[in-house]
Amino acid sequence: GIGLDTSRELVKRDLKNLVILDRIDNPAVIAELKAINPKVTVTFYPYDVTVPLAETTKLLKTIFAQLKTVDVLINGAGILDDHQIERTIAVNFTGLVNTTTAILDFWDKRKGGPGGVICNIGSVTGFNAIYQVPVYSASKAAVVSFTQSIAKLANVTGVTAFTVNPGITKITLVHKFNSWLDVETRVAEKLLEHPTQTTLACAQNFVKAIELNKNGAI
Amino acid sequence: GIGLDTSRELVKRDLKNLVILDRIDNPAVIAELKAINPKVTVTFYPYDVTVPLAETTKLLKTIFAQLKTVDVLINGAGILDDHQIERTIAVNFTGLVNTTTAILDFWDKRKGGPGGVICNIGSVTGFNAIYQVPVYSASKAAVVSFTQSIAKLANVTGVTAFTVNPGITKITLVHKFNSWLDVETRVAEKLLEHPTQTTLACAQNFVKAIELNKNGAI
Repeated sequence: GIGLDTSRELVKRDLKNLVILDRIDNPAVIAELKAINPKVTVTFYPYDVTVPLAETTKLLKTIFAQLKTVDVLINGAGILDDHQIERTIAVNFTGLVNTTTAILDFWDKRKGGPGGVICNIGSVTGFNAIYQVPVYSASKAAVVSFTQSIAKLANVTGVTAFTVNPGITKITLVHKFNSWLDVETRVAEKLLEHPTQTTLACAQNFVKAIELNKNGAI
Repeated sequence: GIGLDTSRELVKRDLKNLVILDRIDNPAVIAELKAINPKVTVTFYPYDVTVPLAETTKLLKTIFAQLKTVDVLINGAGILDDHQIERTIAVNFTGLVNTTTAILDFWDKRKGGPGGVICNIGSVTGFNAIYQVPVYSASKAAVVSFTQSIAKLANVTGVTAFTVNPGITKITLVHKFNSWLDVETRVAEKLLEHPTQTTLACAQNFVKAIELNKNGAI
């Protein structure tokens, strides 16, 4: 999906390290990324964003110890399934807030940290909801609001933040997903009547946004 | 706070029943409300909005069986403490979504239900974040977005929805609350430099909004 294509684009750049955190290890994908640019060290750690804050902090301790420094955090975990209310909120919103909060421990300039850059994956639905998936859309509105606040706190923390807000992207998930209380059983089909983008186009714009790295951008 | 003053205003109206759901029973308050207008039947049920959906459904079954019909649901539970990330999201956002989802089971016109009215307590911070409390503000942005979607689904479900979005209200909580990672230790003091309203004024406008009952209003 978007995460993989973004990683592919990222390793083409002059990067030292790419750390991929995901629930499930996919050695073939990691091998592919390593092959694209052998100069980039690609590492994988298993991570479920719904774990408690303390566990995230522990994992980040390992990563920071190994790399000495981390420049950018991309919060990319997300699900689209309005039958799963608690999980949607836990992954799309709470997980992103907790991961951000945990990394501040290492980056916060008030603690002598070097600052850093947070890139959060929002969605156009954070601005204009797809009302058939009100929980998903609201979780993305929360991401946009949260990120805007973090950006405004950059003078205190030294950490800048922006969101990337993809429009309708042809990912596997869009082919079929559940609306809230089944208010519309053909949401995916209806969405695909609108202009869509490929995951590749999305990923390229995504990396462009990271390169621009404008605090508070949406 | 706002909930109590709103209840006081509500029982002054030509109401048949007022059911109060709260974590902690306060018999003195219930007695006071009953005394204001003996024609209104005031009932209390203990309810924690963070319980699983099935428990909410069970409680609503009891309430609907007792009252035969419920016209308006006010989602009023909320906390303001950005040290408590998970709880803020669970109470302000997930709890409101779950309570709304649970009552749809009784109201949804697709299931032969009579429809109903949902009044959600948002906040001006849903539109303009108080960035020192990014988690609270984002949870309110989510409430506003979610409610707008539910309002757009009224033609499907028969359930209308609107938010009431109070500005800075002099409640006990505002006197001192935690900012995210203590980015600002004087948020409450700084807020009180702005124009504020009393809980009474807030409650009066609140009840006015309920009486207007305009689907999708903010």
